[in-house]
Amino acid sequence: MHVRLTEQRYGKSSIYLTKVTRHQQRHDIKELAIDVALEGDFSESYVRGANHQVVATDTMKNTVFALAAEHPLEDAESFVLVLAGHFLDRIPHVTVASVTAAESPWQRIDTAAGPHANAFIGGTSERRTCSVRCTRDKTVVKGGIAGLALLKTTNSAFRGFRRDEFTTLAETDDRIFATQVNAEWTYYPKAVEWNTARETIRDRMVAVFADHMSLSVQQTLFAMGEAAMKACPSIAAIHLEMPNRHRLPINLELLGKENRNEIFVATCAPYGLITATLERENA
Amino acid sequence: MHVRLTEQRYGKSSIYLTKVTRHQQRHDIKELAIDVALEGDFSESYVRGANHQVVATDTMKNTVFALAAEHPLEDAESFVLVLAGHFLDRIPHVTVASVTAAESPWQRIDTAAGPHANAFIGGTSERRTCSVRCTRDKTVVKGGIAGLALLKTTNSAFRGFRRDEFTTLAETDDRIFATQVNAEWTYYPKAVEWNTARETIRDRMVAVFADHMSLSVQQTLFAMGEAAMKACPSIAAIHLEMPNRHRLPINLELLGKENRNEIFVATCAPYGLITATLERENA
Amino acid sequence: MHVRLTEQRYGKSSIYLTKVTRHQQRHDIKELAIDVALEGDFSESYVRGANHQVVATDTMKNTVFALAAEHPLEDAESFVLVLAGHFLDRIPHVTVASVTAAESPWQRIDTAAGPHANAFIGGTSERRTCSVRCTRDKTVVKGGIAGLALLKTTNSAFRGFRRDEFTTLAETDDRIFATQVNAEWTYYPKAVEWNTARETIRDRMVAVFADHMSLSVQQTLFAMGEAAMKACPSIAAIHLEMPNRHRLPINLELLGKENRNEIFVATCAPYGLITATLERENA
Amino acid sequence: MHVRLTEQRYGKSSIYLTKVTRHQQRHDIKELAIDVALEGDFSESYVRGANHQVVATDTMKNTVFALAAEHPLEDAESFVLVLAGHFLDRIPHVTVASVTAAESPWQRIDTAAGPHANAFIGGTSERRTCSVRCTRDKTVVKGGIAGLALLKTTNSAFRGFRRDEFTTLAETDDRIFATQVNAEWTYYPKAVEWNTARETIRDRMVAVFADHMSLSVQQTLFAMGEAAMKACPSIAAIHLEMPNRHRLPINLELLGKENRNEIFVATCAPYGLITATLERENA
Repeated sequence: MHVRLTEQRYGKSSIYLTKVTRHQQRHDIKELAIDVALEGDFSESYVRGANHQVVATDTMKNTVFALAAEHPLEDAESFVLVLAGHFLDRIPHVTVASVTAAESPWQRIDTAAGPHANAFIGGTSERRTCSVRCTRDKTVVKGGIAGLALLKTTNSAFRGFRRDEFTTLAETDDRIFATQVNAEWTYYPKAVEWNTARETIRDRMVAVFADHMSLSVQQTLFAMGEAAMKACPSIAAIHLEMPNRHRLPINLELLGKENRNEIFVATCAPYGLITATLERENA
Repeated sequence: MHVRLTEQRYGKSSIYLTKVTRHQQRHDIKELAIDVALEGDFSESYVRGANHQVVATDTMKNTVFALAAEHPLEDAESFVLVLAGHFLDRIPHVTVASVTAAESPWQRIDTAAGPHANAFIGGTSERRTCSVRCTRDKTVVKGGIAGLALLKTTNSAFRGFRRDEFTTLAETDDRIFATQVNAEWTYYPKAVEWNTARETIRDRMVAVFADHMSLSVQQTLFAMGEAAMKACPSIAAIHLEMPNRHRLPINLELLGKENRNEIFVATCAPYGLITATLERENA
Repeated sequence: MHVRLTEQRYGKSSIYLTKVTRHQQRHDIKELAIDVALEGDFSESYVRGANHQVVATDTMKNTVFALAAEHPLEDAESFVLVLAGHFLDRIPHVTVASVTAAESPWQRIDTAAGPHANAFIGGTSERRTCSVRCTRDKTVVKGGIAGLALLKTTNSAFRGFRRDEFTTLAETDDRIFATQVNAEWTYYPKAVEWNTARETIRDRMVAVFADHMSLSVQQTLFAMGEAAMKACPSIAAIHLEMPNRHRLPINLELLGKENRNEIFVATCAPYGLITATLERENA
Repeated sequence: MHVRLTEQRYGKSSIYLTKVTRHQQRHDIKELAIDVALEGDFSESYVRGANHQVVATDTMKNTVFALAAEHPLEDAESFVLVLAGHFLDRIPHVTVASVTAAESPWQRIDTAAGPHANAFIGGTSERRTCSVRCTRDKTVVKGGIAGLALLKTTNSAFRGFRRDEFTTLAETDDRIFATQVNAEWTYYPKAVEWNTARETIRDRMVAVFADHMSLSVQQTLFAMGEAAMKACPSIAAIHLEMPNRHRLPINLELLGKENRNEIFVATCAPYGLITATLERENA
């Protein structure tokens, strides 16, 4: 019997990079968790323990910090492109360089005189993500949002679904709809204003969530993705994942009270998970 | 040898309560994680397994949901007071009722027409906490904030500290100061506008953090606590815990680059932890 | 512009199932976290909010509990196969049914008289995973292990790797090797003794980790995968992910002490991540 | 108005220490998460930002690593005593030194030839904890266990509890009892074989959990604590916290099936939380 190495890929994950840019009037801060992964002719290290082709993952980490010193880091997308390019340019036996970044946003603290010049508030679960996967022939850039917590207290129904002997769920015209949106979109291969594109997509998705008369999580997810694609012509596709973070109405009749659709319990598990990918049609 | 039960206390933790209040023009939402704990004459259940005095923790959970249906829940403080009072009033052998609430805040989604009537964004690590500990003679109410993430990129120094043979830390005039504030304050036993008090304390602490020329985490912590007490005469004391969430400068010289106090790594562990309690002096 | 739904998939995640089997002399316990996901003709619910084809995720959850009552659950693999088959058999418009299970193992408590009949100890990070993806034509069964924490204090070197201007890592002949193994293997489509196969694979991987003279994480990963495939002829491929959970030697010279390769710090981030897939060669 | 600093305490938390001891025939490994905190005359740093009395928390971290190089670390208790003593001895203005350690246990991998000399398996949620709080006059040493996951499938009842209008819980003669034990005991101030004491206490608590005919969580908790104190004369008191990690029976009648006390769901929240402190009576 023989065993063959059919895929291999390695790198450094969770490189926490903080960059402060000190402008005259204000400071900017960017905090990214960066993952680097390389593919290529590394099989000797797996099969024989021969490391001469191996870039130490510690070197990948150092590279992130060294290149960050020279890059303006106004957007994460152009920085991960630089990183991936660096590894492909320098190391002939690398065939694929993948770099992802997840940004933890910091907002300026509000003051009477406007946004503070150098003090920030953070702690949101939302991450601004991006990733590149580069070969010498092709570059794919993706943007994304992870962990965006949204909730609406009305305009969400779920009726008319299939029933069988194991169906006990009641139909409802008016439920709480709570989710944590994970979205990832794929850019066309051309110049993009990355931060503008992201803000446009995020704003549209949030606005559609808020105003949509939802007949199902599926329908709202599709409407959000469709609106994002309409608003941002730079993207070719979008993938959405929306868990249904159930708020279940409490049966208060057992306790001698009436529940006027006001009292709910948030459950951790199980949860619905709705996903879809939307693509632009070639008209 | 004999063994004696010297303390006992039991209850239900992490009761996730969601209440939607449906006003004509808008909906309000309140999400609380509530813990109930009782002390009293329950020793028979421990020592002999005799349960006739035991209030099932499941009943505590039901009580939270039942009473929430009737309470306006505009602030968590008055609701936890009602809960603690309920157990003391109904159950003669309960001597202490402790109830805490941790609120996960939801903010209205911004729209062109102003804050949305029924759609919200969440996901912050910040919790608005409160707790009561009630006996038949005495009620202590505390408020708090947990997990408030703050960061400033300048106006933080750390110099002149004690050095010994194990000291390697360099002095610095200009470092990043990042923390997650946990604060708990104790109210005087009189009527308080709970939400106003909390907002006043939080606003002052955030403002002082932003503007303070910090010579140490200790000094900023004290300044924040002092400002909170000055701004809110309803509180008798405040306890603060501020971890120092280090952003360590990267030594780029080893990599042939200069670090102009711009490139840092965020570390998870270890972290400094600075705490203090401030009380109002009887003048 | 038109937008097209190109992929959609939904289901219920984190259905926590506990089954106790009460034998005469002993009880068995199985605790599984189950995820169900369906693909098929559900696009009307996304595009138009028409739910008549939708199986509520709540019904999926009920189905898991109902079928668990009748299934012996001696292994998770045969149960997830039954679940996937149930949805394909009952619902004509389902084209793919995917079900995964992650088992949290409980071990019998040791007593002087041998393993206890009905009391268990748990709490390990290790999960026994399995998944099926079934269409009406094809069934793919995978097994796996997640979160298996292994550490060796010697017989791990890392030398001779590529150096460039950003390389600062020292070569080492003797380092700590700590990891958390995630493995997933694909079974051939034929009858398998699932529990035996899993134990064989796990035992071999653990034994190889322990005894391997490691020249790199890559090499040990390959050796573990190769040994698993040799020991278990039922599997066609295995995918391994092994983070390098670094224990970094402390520079004690700065503190006037010698570090004889004894004192280390465990870091959370960043971490190396080594992955590969091995397949059996068609001889 | 004046504000007074009434308590202050600061230190370094989550110092992850790994020590490998290389014996001729085998290696030992100890992994501790250590927290150091000091109290004393540090008020100038809080009130005025004067740091000359401040021991940098970075120095505390260095001290842990430096002293670990010289300490055998066969038990964590004697090491945290050395650490606390170091700070009290060296720094006149320190009045209280508190040091805690939480050990993540690693078990030797089983081989045909017996336990492996240098390869280990880990990943348990159980932590072996200890703490000291030392002044120049007094030393209090505590030991503990955290996160010990135990479950029994029978011999647990809950009947005869108090009922009121909010009580819906059914009585039961036979339920699953699952918990994660947190225990902390206080040693008498005299010489103790720390590892032996810990093992004795743990073994007795686990054995009592397994064999106890439980009429309530409270009763089992008390029996476990009582057994620990009887088995280990070195301890003066023990505090126990036992969450009731509910496994709720599923109502299968709604699904046309019978539940013969076999099918349950594990819920994350809410959970019961039972606590007590036991002390030895002065006979």
